[in-house]
Amino acid sequence: MSRHEAQHIDQSTCAGRRNARALALLALLATCLPTAGTLAADATKPLTMGDVMAASKPSDWRTLDPHNTLYMQLPAGRVIIELAPQFAPQTVANIKTLVREKYFDGLAVTRVQDNYVAQWGDPNADNAKLRRPLGKAQSHVPAEFTIAPGKDFTFTPLPDRDGWAPQAGFAYGFPAAMDLQAHQAWLTHCYGTLGVGRDNAADSGNGAELYAVIASSARWLDRNITVAGRVVQGMEYLSSLPRGHGELGFYTKGEHPVPITSVRLAADVPTKDRVKLEILRTDTPTFAALVESRRNRRDEWYKQPAGYIDVCSVPIPVRAVK
Amino acid sequence: MSRHEAQHIDQSTCAGRRNARALALLALLATCLPTAGTLAADATKPLTMGDVMAASKPSDWRTLDPHNTLYMQLPAGRVIIELAPQFAPQTVANIKTLVREKYFDGLAVTRVQDNYVAQWGDPNADNAKLRRPLGKAQSHVPAEFTIAPGKDFTFTPLPDRDGWAPQAGFAYGFPAAMDLQAHQAWLTHCYGTLGVGRDNAADSGNGAELYAVIASSARWLDRNITVAGRVVQGMEYLSSLPRGHGELGFYTKGEHPVPITSVRLAADVPTKDRVKLEILRTDTPTFAALVESRRNRRDEWYKQPAGYIDVCSVPIPVRAVK
Repeated sequence: MSRHEAQHIDQSTCAGRRNARALALLALLATCLPTAGTLAADATKPLTMGDVMAASKPSDWRTLDPHNTLYMQLPAGRVIIELAPQFAPQTVANIKTLVREKYFDGLAVTRVQDNYVAQWGDPNADNAKLRRPLGKAQSHVPAEFTIAPGKDFTFTPLPDRDGWAPQAGFAYGFPAAMDLQAHQAWLTHCYGTLGVGRDNAADSGNGAELYAVIASSARWLDRNITVAGRVVQGMEYLSSLPRGHGELGFYTKGEHPVPITSVRLAADVPTKDRVKLEILRTDTPTFAALVESRRNRRDEWYKQPAGYIDVCSVPIPVRAVK
Repeated sequence: MSRHEAQHIDQSTCAGRRNARALALLALLATCLPTAGTLAADATKPLTMGDVMAASKPSDWRTLDPHNTLYMQLPAGRVIIELAPQFAPQTVANIKTLVREKYFDGLAVTRVQDNYVAQWGDPNADNAKLRRPLGKAQSHVPAEFTIAPGKDFTFTPLPDRDGWAPQAGFAYGFPAAMDLQAHQAWLTHCYGTLGVGRDNAADSGNGAELYAVIASSARWLDRNITVAGRVVQGMEYLSSLPRGHGELGFYTKGEHPVPITSVRLAADVPTKDRVKLEILRTDTPTFAALVESRRNRRDEWYKQPAGYIDVCSVPIPVRAVK
């Protein structure tokens, strides 16, 4: 039995599932999701993720802000992105300028590197004569790799130690990490993370070239690039694209970049045409219960619960609003 | 600066790159890859992965054993799998029996769950009348989730702490983990890991239903399922398949399972038709240098080397033999 199992082997009761470190920062788990009659009646039964979801309350969910939501239409389907102005205010503003100019319409996914990233932008970006002008958008935006958390910053740490950072968890609903000593926080490179392509200079990104992580984690990129948000729906339209066979997974001349039909800010789309989604909040007892249900899987199939979870392995549920 | 950077910030010299814990188990790095004249002449320059590869010696590479190599032909291309009899002897033997019966020919990839696994086998496995008989293969094989390492077992640990296990690293060229106290070792679920589908009973897998991990990591599966090997080439033919929209990513009736043309043991293929590949050994100073080049990326693009790496983030290079 590993140290992790040893630590958690007796967590078969509701009280046991409360993690001491999480409790220091989070509200009590409040008798294991009190709104769920069936669960409260059988409080000694460990919860599966399905149990946790079934017992969630309306207040456990949040809606997407249409002013920070992008719809990227690809031939195969729609990719929905939540922007993170809390972490990259100048970059997000520049991306919104580009989107409102319809900059991305007719551009393409130019790079799909297996087990790493799908990237899109102007296939002629390196050709001064052919490339699309940025219009009113800035060509250089300062690096926004980390932020200095202000007094209204709330961080929900995971109970387990992270390898890539002093602390990992969630902030504003995004997977994130912190270094309290350095007074820095940043968004982590997990599945769906939206990053801002750049050249070697730290300030050479502007949001005209974006990528989504199609690996479940690429944490070595953390603090090396501006993260501007996260794909919340439609990742499969990026992750299942043919891989490029040029250097770094760029499509070669013989391969075909995947065209982008359009990118729109949800706020600019008529209300009736918006996709109504809710995302599970990450700062609630329900989310803490979800994390525990994944740290120690207790359904019959699992024989050896892991007793551990990393930030990129925690699913952040999304649901359609009726 | 995080604790990790603090630990490694002064590793800009060759000597500094030698990790104390790695040195306890590995041979000396021998003056930073002595076969490479240009590298030896500039020993204070941190090595990139490209530098390490360029300086590798023939003895740093191993060839695949044709008796433990599978070729799975899909319509889009060939998937090459290295079997791991060291970890799953009975399961690997059963898979080889199935392959020699041409059991898989004409069966299909039946499940592609985004950011998780691609799985293949008999689409009619649940229908006693329609399913393909297993022939001389066993219908139940004992669980081979872990092994008790014998005296000839060699484990090359990573320098950094793992979250999912007391220790992670490499064994027989595969990503693996260990629990010395429990006297157990096992193969870890990283990108390309070949697992053996099973029902709830631990011994219900037999190798007729296999999956490859298409996420970069799915470590919570470790010690819960028999791992029989690893895809060493052609992962993109699995990872870029359309996702299934049934429960757990199974293809629904309206979707189309991807046919398997054939699965062959390399030893049963004429020598001239075999794919000649070499894989970088994981128990050498060269591999230790590769790990360090990924723990702390020093090329100009990176501004903040991570100072950490997990077992699923270490690439295991494969090359064609001329």
